[in-house]
Amino acid sequence: MPRLIVERIAMAHPGDVSAVAALIASGRLRAGEIRAVVGKTEGNGGLNDFTRGYFIQSLMALLAEHTGETPAALAARIPCVLSGGTEGVLSPHAVIFGVRDEAAQGRGLALGTAFGAALPRDAAGTDAQIAAVEAAVRAAMASAGIADPTLVFVKTPAGSLAAMARARAAAALGAARALGDVPAARATAAALLRDYTLFSPRVAISAGIEVPCDEVLVLGEAPGWTAGLTLGVRPMADVLDIAAVRDLMRSLGLDADPGVPEAQRPRLRAVFAKGEPDVSGAVRGARHTMLGDTDLDAQRHLRAALGAVVASITGDGRVFVSGGAEHQGPPGGGLVAAIVEQPPA
Amino acid sequence: MPRLIVERIAMAHPGDVSAVAALIASGRLRAGEIRAVVGKTEGNGGLNDFTRGYFIQSLMALLAEHTGETPAALAARIPCVLSGGTEGVLSPHAVIFGVRDEAAQGRGLALGTAFGAALPRDAAGTDAQIAAVEAAVRAAMASAGIADPTLVFVKTPAGSLAAMARARAAAALGAARALGDVPAARATAAALLRDYTLFSPRVAISAGIEVPCDEVLVLGEAPGWTAGLTLGVRPMADVLDIAAVRDLMRSLGLDADPGVPEAQRPRLRAVFAKGEPDVSGAVRGARHTMLGDTDLDAQRHLRAALGAVVASITGDGRVFVSGGAEHQGPPGGGLVAAIVEQPPA
Amino acid sequence: MPRLIVERIAMAHPGDVSAVAALIASGRLRAGEIRAVVGKTEGNGGLNDFTRGYFIQSLMALLAEHTGETPAALAARIPCVLSGGTEGVLSPHAVIFGVRDEAAQGRGLALGTAFGAALPRDAAGTDAQIAAVEAAVRAAMASAGIADPTLVFVKTPAGSLAAMARARAAAALGAARALGDVPAARATAAALLRDYTLFSPRVAISAGIEVPCDEVLVLGEAPGWTAGLTLGVRPMADVLDIAAVRDLMRSLGLDADPGVPEAQRPRLRAVFAKGEPDVSGAVRGARHTMLGDTDLDAQRHLRAALGAVVASITGDGRVFVSGGAEHQGPPGGGLVAAIVEQPPA
Amino acid sequence: MPRLIVERIAMAHPGDVSAVAALIASGRLRAGEIRAVVGKTEGNGGLNDFTRGYFIQSLMALLAEHTGETPAALAARIPCVLSGGTEGVLSPHAVIFGVRDEAAQGRGLALGTAFGAALPRDAAGTDAQIAAVEAAVRAAMASAGIADPTLVFVKTPAGSLAAMARARAAAALGAARALGDVPAARATAAALLRDYTLFSPRVAISAGIEVPCDEVLVLGEAPGWTAGLTLGVRPMADVLDIAAVRDLMRSLGLDADPGVPEAQRPRLRAVFAKGEPDVSGAVRGARHTMLGDTDLDAQRHLRAALGAVVASITGDGRVFVSGGAEHQGPPGGGLVAAIVEQPPA
Repeated sequence: MPRLIVERIAMAHPGDVSAVAALIASGRLRAGEIRAVVGKTEGNGGLNDFTRGYFIQSLMALLAEHTGETPAALAARIPCVLSGGTEGVLSPHAVIFGVRDEAAQGRGLALGTAFGAALPRDAAGTDAQIAAVEAAVRAAMASAGIADPTLVFVKTPAGSLAAMARARAAAALGAARALGDVPAARATAAALLRDYTLFSPRVAISAGIEVPCDEVLVLGEAPGWTAGLTLGVRPMADVLDIAAVRDLMRSLGLDADPGVPEAQRPRLRAVFAKGEPDVSGAVRGARHTMLGDTDLDAQRHLRAALGAVVASITGDGRVFVSGGAEHQGPPGGGLVAAIVEQPPA
Repeated sequence: MPRLIVERIAMAHPGDVSAVAALIASGRLRAGEIRAVVGKTEGNGGLNDFTRGYFIQSLMALLAEHTGETPAALAARIPCVLSGGTEGVLSPHAVIFGVRDEAAQGRGLALGTAFGAALPRDAAGTDAQIAAVEAAVRAAMASAGIADPTLVFVKTPAGSLAAMARARAAAALGAARALGDVPAARATAAALLRDYTLFSPRVAISAGIEVPCDEVLVLGEAPGWTAGLTLGVRPMADVLDIAAVRDLMRSLGLDADPGVPEAQRPRLRAVFAKGEPDVSGAVRGARHTMLGDTDLDAQRHLRAALGAVVASITGDGRVFVSGGAEHQGPPGGGLVAAIVEQPPA
Repeated sequence: MPRLIVERIAMAHPGDVSAVAALIASGRLRAGEIRAVVGKTEGNGGLNDFTRGYFIQSLMALLAEHTGETPAALAARIPCVLSGGTEGVLSPHAVIFGVRDEAAQGRGLALGTAFGAALPRDAAGTDAQIAAVEAAVRAAMASAGIADPTLVFVKTPAGSLAAMARARAAAALGAARALGDVPAARATAAALLRDYTLFSPRVAISAGIEVPCDEVLVLGEAPGWTAGLTLGVRPMADVLDIAAVRDLMRSLGLDADPGVPEAQRPRLRAVFAKGEPDVSGAVRGARHTMLGDTDLDAQRHLRAALGAVVASITGDGRVFVSGGAEHQGPPGGGLVAAIVEQPPA
Repeated sequence: MPRLIVERIAMAHPGDVSAVAALIASGRLRAGEIRAVVGKTEGNGGLNDFTRGYFIQSLMALLAEHTGETPAALAARIPCVLSGGTEGVLSPHAVIFGVRDEAAQGRGLALGTAFGAALPRDAAGTDAQIAAVEAAVRAAMASAGIADPTLVFVKTPAGSLAAMARARAAAALGAARALGDVPAARATAAALLRDYTLFSPRVAISAGIEVPCDEVLVLGEAPGWTAGLTLGVRPMADVLDIAAVRDLMRSLGLDADPGVPEAQRPRLRAVFAKGEPDVSGAVRGARHTMLGDTDLDAQRHLRAALGAVVASITGDGRVFVSGGAEHQGPPGGGLVAAIVEQPPA
């Protein structure tokens, strides 16, 4: 019955939602249809990057004007997964997910969302957080009828700065449990940041001190959704694994040789990547300086490099790249994913 | 008669020349055979990056021990073109060029070097500097019998900070004149940073306040040099032009699909790239933030992105990437080059 | 008749206006009484610092709730002069200026504000901009009956990045003309960034690309305003001129020896400072690295140092410090100013 | 019998030792008399700051020319305590300590130095390191006859990055034991980074991965040394404690009101300060952003602020400021010290 709409918009600065306003004005997407946002803003991606909050506040003010809901009510039902840092060729942009009711049959790409319950501050990195994320991911899956998700985004509360990595790890294991990617008996708080054999290759986690409860987006095929969009995901063995990106494009029906030709690029509706600076200190045996370069945060190095590798295949810098991948893939690796519009049969 | 030896060495830090010492100890390269160095050190690549001077001082001290020459004498005959900044996957390394006398015939990759005359401080960006660089490039070509160089590196004095871009531009036009890539009548000081139709697609310029005179490396085929190494150069249309990198690899006999397979990577002896943040503010229509991101220098963004794109094809981060490309190619574009060892026939 | 109210509030982050909400809730300041804001936010103070816009958006949303006016209408009548960058001990805070109607006689510290007309983009740095700022400053003076202002803040449009310094210079000369600090015949566009003998020691200018028209705050004594607050201003010969700060405190009735004692610190309602990295490259003969440190913007160095010097006397980091002082004092110097509550006679 | 000579020299860049060469050429200090160096170089003070190694290599090469010793031998007998980072007004400089044999009686400021034994890599932060530092400090004291040191500098090996804070803490407790500032029974590895009631207010520690063994400088009065120089030390309650700096100057015989007058400044031969960003997140109740500002390291914030506060009293930016003060004073506080030449009686 529903149709997923995916639109990629640009921003002139983090408070600029004029492209969303234009989308609404054009009728391509109605304000009330917007269900979730994944985007990159141009801050430094660190603790004093406030561009995410600024964009969200701007967006909710705009939607409030159109829907009559309050900004607070909108923020409590529309998950916004934003990552700061557009290093190198990365371009500030947001992927706006909408759902329109229409007569559909068959099977297509679906979106489920959910907000978890508020947890006490000291729950970060505990079995309580793992359970909360597991429940929220299950709720998001159920809301859209997605039995086997292709990609899951979770934004989770960290409680405190010191707990950031542990909170990401707990959310990853919680999502992995919901997906059945790890044995529930082992994926407990005792395994956090220890047993790296436990991971899900299809979750992308971010954590924030300011986040009050889990926000979840689940993407995957489901019955009753309009066909037309395809989502693919591939693991990347390391940040230089360009064959993975090329192969993903080909698997989605694009002629990547190695880059996607200009004529096909508009069919790309969203590109996501996740990775980590290799903690061994080297990539394929060559020492990198991502971990020891005091004046440039390790994740900024990583985003610039990984983003450029992906963009060189997909054709431009509108790539959502984020770091911090505990239990979200094998150590040192990452993933690349894309949503492509399929041509009418 | 001579044979060009090209060795790529790693450094644990900018004062670490133990890999050069090991090279000498192994006999692969004698200290007295070293003729030139092109390398990347892990500073920030800016005004307070002193890693270049530190590496050169360390290297000359080592060579002085072995050759009996003074460090100052060595620095005055061995050009060292170093670029700071190993952002993203870039790996600190140096390409050591040596020349060994041996019986040779036929034709092979040759290296010519030259040092120009010391110029007064206020000559930066004048016709005097253009003429000095032209003469030094011609001298380097003559020293090796290279009639038509494939790639030229020039390190030139800037006089003052304010004159950096202008000094690079003057050196580019001087080298372009020596190569016959621009009409001498038009390539004068009046055209500097104005007439961008004047450029050479095979020169890489760096400028420094501390540099007392021009240092020149010329690479190209010449008669009487031992065969075995091939140098190729390709223009890059923009920082995402991955097809150019892949095509260069293939033109040099490597099976890039799209990356060079692991077994062939040891044949890569040196990889160079040059590029610029697109001053239009966008790459293929997507806004980039390289020019407006106050906390991260534009060239650091560029090096991280361009270096990763090239490394994703060549297979690791040992890529010499530098920015500041006035009159060294069409605006917004760049070049990629590599030296490959050819298998015995 | 009116009484000036000056409150200094803290923010937990640039979107946090809860302290303003508390002020309103307490009745110390009604939302409708707020007339102007001067503050520091914790961004990097550069081109990709969006903390100023975020704070203003947050503040106007709060005031809109209380006053019934739209955020846009509020932003068009309440000047907000914000400076990003809380380096060192500097503390994110804002000085909220309110005006309350009450029966007054005699003479006291007054506040006048004005918004100039919108100018075409290419007017930055021209005689048209000088004239517009002059008119706006005169309007602000007239609005409060201030004949001889003690301190003037101007936020002015820059048109483009390249025009920032020139726009600041034009605004400084425009304000200086309104104040009679420079001869009108000489203070024209021809003198901008050339004739540094032309300056006003009582203006603080900021420029922004996103600013559509001049915003002006004028502070000074005027008849008919309630007494009780005193504003003082002193020139600083250089960034280390601690005697100037100490003397200013004493002139305002505080016992600075050298710091203001804890018991008197609550009487300090606002502290402002302006300065510049000395372009000679040295402070009192000792080389500084503010201008050549690529990884840290010159103004960040300056704010950290100047802010700490002022704060060591005033007692804490709630100091408004900004740089970019063309025609706002003698080269290399700056100013320090403070508003102090006087004890009842 | 010996006379301590203290000279403060400037550097144009970290490889510039021309001012030391000039000192030697002038006869004020002979190359063979140099015993120790404490200085600040203009890197970022972090892991990719190689300016310390560059300066030391340059200095030892110069001294080797004059003394005939090898650079390695010189580096093994002349302790060099360098700190990177000249933020704000801080000026790159070094304090060169020399000792000249001459007929003396009475009592004066003395310098003792020592190098500890090389320790295994995993000894960092253990009782073995505490004992090694204690022994080295005792040896340095004995070498000069200093019974009760006024100030002690220690550079200690860290083994690995992760062990930096723990290594500094161990060295602090080791020095504190030698000085009798802590009870030996409690100052053991078990107390490291736990029992902050254990500290010495007269030690300044730095740690480095590249450091092979402890290097110690001890300064204090001793019999048989020529009089003429006075060293004073004061605790600072926080980074804004300007009264402490002013009082130190006065205690050393200078007329600080609040700054040292220009005519007396040449008598200042060295100024040292140590401090920490307050981990409570506030200075005197005002929130600071030193700990959460991702794009600027906390220690860079601290050095800029503390250095400017001290320099505003002493009169210029030649202040040795370093951070990382575990067990080197009460939490959140620091120290300031100076060497002043006394006028002839």
